[in-house]
Amino acid sequence: MLLTAFYIAVAAEAMTAALAAGRRNMDWFGVCLIACVTALGGGTMRDILLDHYPLVWVQNPYLLLLVCGSALATIPLARLVERLRWPFLLLDALGLVVFTVIGCNIGIEAGVHPIIVIVAGMVTGTAGGILRDVLCNDVPLIFQGELYATVSMVAGIIYYLGLIGGMPVDLMALVAIAAGFTLRVLALAFKWEMPKFVYDREMRK
Amino acid sequence: MLLTAFYIAVAAEAMTAALAAGRRNMDWFGVCLIACVTALGGGTMRDILLDHYPLVWVQNPYLLLLVCGSALATIPLARLVERLRWPFLLLDALGLVVFTVIGCNIGIEAGVHPIIVIVAGMVTGTAGGILRDVLCNDVPLIFQGELYATVSMVAGIIYYLGLIGGMPVDLMALVAIAAGFTLRVLALAFKWEMPKFVYDREMRK
Amino acid sequence: MLLTAFYIAVAAEAMTAALAAGRRNMDWFGVCLIACVTALGGGTMRDILLDHYPLVWVQNPYLLLLVCGSALATIPLARLVERLRWPFLLLDALGLVVFTVIGCNIGIEAGVHPIIVIVAGMVTGTAGGILRDVLCNDVPLIFQGELYATVSMVAGIIYYLGLIGGMPVDLMALVAIAAGFTLRVLALAFKWEMPKFVYDREMRK
Repeated sequence: MLLTAFYIAVAAEAMTAALAAGRRNMDWFGVCLIACVTALGGGTMRDILLDHYPLVWVQNPYLLLLVCGSALATIPLARLVERLRWPFLLLDALGLVVFTVIGCNIGIEAGVHPIIVIVAGMVTGTAGGILRDVLCNDVPLIFQGELYATVSMVAGIIYYLGLIGGMPVDLMALVAIAAGFTLRVLALAFKWEMPKFVYDREMRK
Repeated sequence: MLLTAFYIAVAAEAMTAALAAGRRNMDWFGVCLIACVTALGGGTMRDILLDHYPLVWVQNPYLLLLVCGSALATIPLARLVERLRWPFLLLDALGLVVFTVIGCNIGIEAGVHPIIVIVAGMVTGTAGGILRDVLCNDVPLIFQGELYATVSMVAGIIYYLGLIGGMPVDLMALVAIAAGFTLRVLALAFKWEMPKFVYDREMRK
Repeated sequence: MLLTAFYIAVAAEAMTAALAAGRRNMDWFGVCLIACVTALGGGTMRDILLDHYPLVWVQNPYLLLLVCGSALATIPLARLVERLRWPFLLLDALGLVVFTVIGCNIGIEAGVHPIIVIVAGMVTGTAGGILRDVLCNDVPLIFQGELYATVSMVAGIIYYLGLIGGMPVDLMALVAIAAGFTLRVLALAFKWEMPKFVYDREMRK
């Protein structure tokens, strides 16, 4: 189940990333690269930070084909994808929490400290979007107040606490994904935002 | 032969990177760092992704001196280098295909899937330029339509198919470099471009 | 002593990074992430380049709490921190040289070439600030002429030459830190700058 959700989420991330690339008038290669970085960059960064090799897409290169195929298929379907805004926001929310749970699992396997387990989940869930924004030359969207990384952290903590408490892995994955997904959808619906730190003085070093 | 071409290409990449740094009024240290990232960043990224250590320039630190020396020598020679625009475009094209073949070799040695062999070649050939543009705060030039990554992919595929077909390594390296180089030069001469994905609706998540 | 200075420098880097995030109106999560990248990114990049695992903050996750705590504490104290401009510049200078010496030590332990030992020190001292500026979508500040990377290089060379010359490690750490710190403060006081490479012709490939 987690694996199916993973593939769906990867394809959905690739498609929204392709739209971001299209808004910057990138060529087809740029579209594929932005899609790969967005959909697979979080897991790649987590594995590099934890020294966990081989990387997921090196071991399973068909993931690259799935990502590039989804991204290129988005080009003729851009108008359609845009009209499907809500389904894609839901798929993106699903991806965020599924990636988080998978990342926590890798952290647990690697035997790291609980704090790093949660961080591994958050990196997996959010780093792809940050890398996408850096390559597209934006200040990362994720820092602009949306409840996104917070959702990843909450889902990771629920999952990890459940496992420590002796709950079965499958159940806790389901619970964490459901809780995180609900929180993300509520945040979208009610426009919940993280408080911002607005500081307008210049203090250049 | 591949090694000589590699050193020439590294020096040429360092010199064009120095010009890019100069256009942003960077100091001498910035010039050296942009040159290192551009000339050695592709191989470094490939090695990190494939867990292939030690990195080329850690094992052979004189590469850093070659890169920084070439970059700093560009400063008094900037006008001259600019007039040598075509020679540098040719050296850059040579570098792209030489880096690609070297990257494919590393992938083959590491025993990865054929798709990843080609990706290793493409990362080696193109990631340095992408990192340079990120550090210079540009949307990467490589995504703007030029046949650049495509050339790297084609050269890598020719090289790998030849090796699978039992051709001698040296011959195939020569064939792939010649084919890729010709394709790149033709693309420059006739302004061949990748199709772009232009999408101007705002769909911010 | 080195360890105490390290913790103080990490906290100081986190606080100045938080101000940089605040100038871009980031949310609290963005503030924490920019602080982590700035304070711990240099060491992380060095360890990835040298294949030196586990990363410092993976092994000692309380560093993350120190960084995020310092960054969040900066939000209500922003005006105060701004008035403490000079103390923070001094702490930043201390951090630069302390990070450099620690980075050189890791390089020496890893048994790399002397050039790479100095590079390991420079990466540790300066890469965090470069990553901060990339995430904040600036051309990195460090390339704009300040004597910053140069200070790191000088401190690293003094430290390494002393060790080769048979001096005790503790003494050389103290000497290198004092010399680098003094150089940085003098550079700040007298506005010493690296020469810049200003090149305004367009030569797009």
